[in-house]
Amino acid sequence: MKIALAQNNYIVGDFEHNKEKILEALNKAKKGGADLVVFAELAITGYPPRDFLDFDDFIRKSYETVTEIAAATDAHTGAIIGMPVFNAQPKGKALKNAAVFLWKGKIDSFFHKTLLPTYDVFDEYRYFEPNREFHLLNFKGKKIAVTICEDIWNVDNQYGYVVSPTDELMNYHPDLMINIAASPFHTEQPVVRKRILKSNVRKYQIPLVYVNHVGAQTELLFDGNSQVINASEEILLELKYFEEDFGIVDLDQTPIAEIPVPEKMALLESALVMGIKNYFTKLGLKKAILGLSGGIDSALTITLAVKALGKENVYGVLMPSAFSSDHSVEDAIQLAKNLGVKSDIIDIQPTVESYDNVLKPYFRNLPFGIAEENIQARTRGVLLMALSNKFGYILLNTSNKSEAAVGYGTLYGDMNGGLSVLGDVYKTEVFALALYINRDEELIPWNIINKPPSAELRPNQKDTDSLPDYDILDGILYQYIELRKGPEEIVKAGFERALVEKVLGMVNRTEYKRHQAPPILRVSPKAFGMGRRMPIVAKYLT
Amino acid sequence: MKIALAQNNYIVGDFEHNKEKILEALNKAKKGGADLVVFAELAITGYPPRDFLDFDDFIRKSYETVTEIAAATDAHTGAIIGMPVFNAQPKGKALKNAAVFLWKGKIDSFFHKTLLPTYDVFDEYRYFEPNREFHLLNFKGKKIAVTICEDIWNVDNQYGYVVSPTDELMNYHPDLMINIAASPFHTEQPVVRKRILKSNVRKYQIPLVYVNHVGAQTELLFDGNSQVINASEEILLELKYFEEDFGIVDLDQTPIAEIPVPEKMALLESALVMGIKNYFTKLGLKKAILGLSGGIDSALTITLAVKALGKENVYGVLMPSAFSSDHSVEDAIQLAKNLGVKSDIIDIQPTVESYDNVLKPYFRNLPFGIAEENIQARTRGVLLMALSNKFGYILLNTSNKSEAAVGYGTLYGDMNGGLSVLGDVYKTEVFALALYINRDEELIPWNIINKPPSAELRPNQKDTDSLPDYDILDGILYQYIELRKGPEEIVKAGFERALVEKVLGMVNRTEYKRHQAPPILRVSPKAFGMGRRMPIVAKYLT
Repeated sequence: MKIALAQNNYIVGDFEHNKEKILEALNKAKKGGADLVVFAELAITGYPPRDFLDFDDFIRKSYETVTEIAAATDAHTGAIIGMPVFNAQPKGKALKNAAVFLWKGKIDSFFHKTLLPTYDVFDEYRYFEPNREFHLLNFKGKKIAVTICEDIWNVDNQYGYVVSPTDELMNYHPDLMINIAASPFHTEQPVVRKRILKSNVRKYQIPLVYVNHVGAQTELLFDGNSQVINASEEILLELKYFEEDFGIVDLDQTPIAEIPVPEKMALLESALVMGIKNYFTKLGLKKAILGLSGGIDSALTITLAVKALGKENVYGVLMPSAFSSDHSVEDAIQLAKNLGVKSDIIDIQPTVESYDNVLKPYFRNLPFGIAEENIQARTRGVLLMALSNKFGYILLNTSNKSEAAVGYGTLYGDMNGGLSVLGDVYKTEVFALALYINRDEELIPWNIINKPPSAELRPNQKDTDSLPDYDILDGILYQYIELRKGPEEIVKAGFERALVEKVLGMVNRTEYKRHQAPPILRVSPKAFGMGRRMPIVAKYLT
Repeated sequence: MKIALAQNNYIVGDFEHNKEKILEALNKAKKGGADLVVFAELAITGYPPRDFLDFDDFIRKSYETVTEIAAATDAHTGAIIGMPVFNAQPKGKALKNAAVFLWKGKIDSFFHKTLLPTYDVFDEYRYFEPNREFHLLNFKGKKIAVTICEDIWNVDNQYGYVVSPTDELMNYHPDLMINIAASPFHTEQPVVRKRILKSNVRKYQIPLVYVNHVGAQTELLFDGNSQVINASEEILLELKYFEEDFGIVDLDQTPIAEIPVPEKMALLESALVMGIKNYFTKLGLKKAILGLSGGIDSALTITLAVKALGKENVYGVLMPSAFSSDHSVEDAIQLAKNLGVKSDIIDIQPTVESYDNVLKPYFRNLPFGIAEENIQARTRGVLLMALSNKFGYILLNTSNKSEAAVGYGTLYGDMNGGLSVLGDVYKTEVFALALYINRDEELIPWNIINKPPSAELRPNQKDTDSLPDYDILDGILYQYIELRKGPEEIVKAGFERALVEKVLGMVNRTEYKRHQAPPILRVSPKAFGMGRRMPIVAKYLT
């Protein structure tokens, strides 16, 4: 049996665009003589459609679209494709998450998702009723176990569910498993995913066809890597990481060499570049603006932006203040020169002074403090947004995960932006990624990488004036955010108690700031944003 | 049997605070000779604890707290209280949502929640494994069906679930139902809730004890109204709306008159005032600042703030621009006078000009537009935040739901704030509430209520220059947001097609703005924020 895998980059809610992608792959599959072409989970709508699923109109448009796609199938080439369907039973949620089998010009049959991920960035039980009835697809003499994403993840019965749909399906003795997925990326996911796929093959001793999404959907990134594994755990076909791809496999063909999982910094670079690129292209935007401070965060962000959008579409603005060091300006200019991007220097001093003057009757002789620091950051924010509004640039936010975690940033100032590029990248990883980016040539001036980090909002300020060294800070944050350890456990892991309590208090007290942050490209197993939902008014560890 | 109802205002994660509240009520119950005192769902942790539930440390603290509370019970007075517990079974989610029965100084037994609301603002299946085994509490000769909130809402088997836990429990022939709840307020909820409670009594013909939360948890408001209904659907006890309360009832006592549900505007006023008050008190804050434009939104917001925080804690700042009308300033001054609050006038013109000068080399002779309008709004935003940072005021946001819906507001300008007071109140409701507020005296100057709304960001601007009349706009928005109707259905409901398509497009295209908005006090069945989760990068109806 010849099976085609279609790894596409869909747009949420853009039924026309998605249909065209799907029909194009279906035609390729027909021309290639495939018996079946497999598309990803919820391919018709794009993933995740989120609360669009609450609109009957949205579901009806999904049906209209799949009907048109079904019409393009024929007796030789069928298709399996993901979409939301109305729950035919009178009880339970209104929808089910379905894999639809299309054949001979018609919708042939439905298979529904059993395990509905509802944790981290996933909300599937918000919309879907789980499947409770199991059956196989009988197609051209093969019995096929059709499952959707999470359904194959409880292979070891250890994944927070009370049922394993693959165990259930094996009662019917399938010849083959097909899994259509929407498995979002984080840097550990490609390795974990391969392990889960192979565990299924090892346990059930039949081949597995796996089709994933590729591309960015706001904060969620999909790395693709759709693949086919034979019953001996060998790779028959493996599609690209971070790119649309298509392939046809004969299930009896000889295995090929596995593509090695790229190293962490290579994954990070590809993921972030794709995240920026898709945010812009899918919204019909082209040009990015950002502030260049001479620091490493803005330097790394603009470098990634140039890789994503092209140097002609990126604009860097230097806005030094009275506290900016000479080298900051020089370094930022050198950076812009290295990248070949347009840059300008705008003086914030007259505007900052205007604020100071107008506020003088109220501030009187109170000492310089946070208010004055923030005025500088906010003046920069207003200038960047003015240029953005006037010329159609989208402002890229340059905050990293470490500072977002402890609230080291100015709301309505440097926290501004349409998209946060590094908000899920710890400061220590920012340095590592900058080194990786510079592997062949000095794109980011070495001086930017080597100097001590500073916000430069008051004289001779260093980040370490108010924060611990980043390797220690990031260590504590990782324990708390990714591993969800409490203070006692983090102290036992080897961190100083007073520091642990201080850092955890800072994280929990600054939830209100992150609530108003831009969407953050997710590259870790626990990113700020939709995957981490915290109360703002609360008193835990503060 | 004498049962005490404890309707408390808890703080999420503040185990000490919650324990004290609980122990105080337990003592009152003992003194009052109650056999049992009933507390709300997840009373130990406060509701909703959200992702704090992912921390084992947080759950362990819940156990420590409940153990201390159990120790204060005795042979006469037991207690039922809500908390998260570890799931003892090896499969499924790590936690269950439990009602714990405390008696004779110990934790006696557990009852677990069956129906886990996972829609709108609810995320319970994110954390909890549902109950599948049913048993009663046998206490002092009574057989009691103990349920948690949503468990009694599927009484008609029409609520999106495949099981009705109350039907299941009736197989064991209970004498009494006790339901511990966390039922968040919206203006229709008090009536709906009474209907559901009475439907249970009507169907099962036994009394029902119902205990709810009261108070605000960031955006979620709880209106209390705990109550006891006898088998004849008569009220035996009814606790206050929007206030902490406590009562003891003898199940055999004669019924009392039902408290009529307050009218919509009265509910709205109480809810919003409580929302502001609790946001401040629970965060240990006192003083609010806001911009006074002379328009109705800021006028209503400051009036509610004065009711919540006291006039001595509210500060209004007038920041007229070149396009502000004289009457705007006069009206705002009159408003501050009526309320007795401190106010100041700060001139934004010098700062706006400073921006214009500094941007002139880039903007050149391009015509005045959105960029310049936004500079005014953002200059105001920076000034308010500067005063906030310097003196510890919290900025209240004054945007209403209509303008939030269509993106009629400036990000990092008038969209700033720690809390949005009116973000779930449509403009037409803003007018109605202002009239209600003025029912006894002219707090809000009539001129503010009567003049046509304008952002005053360019000469002679009116909201109706770019938006339809608010009664039409709000009609379309209600169909789309609350009722989740698609464009065809809204047209059928009597709205003009071109306008419907324009408005829906505006809503969907401005999701990126609302993503960065402050938390919004939720008073409708579908508020922006945690209850409405939309993709930013998408192409549905745009």
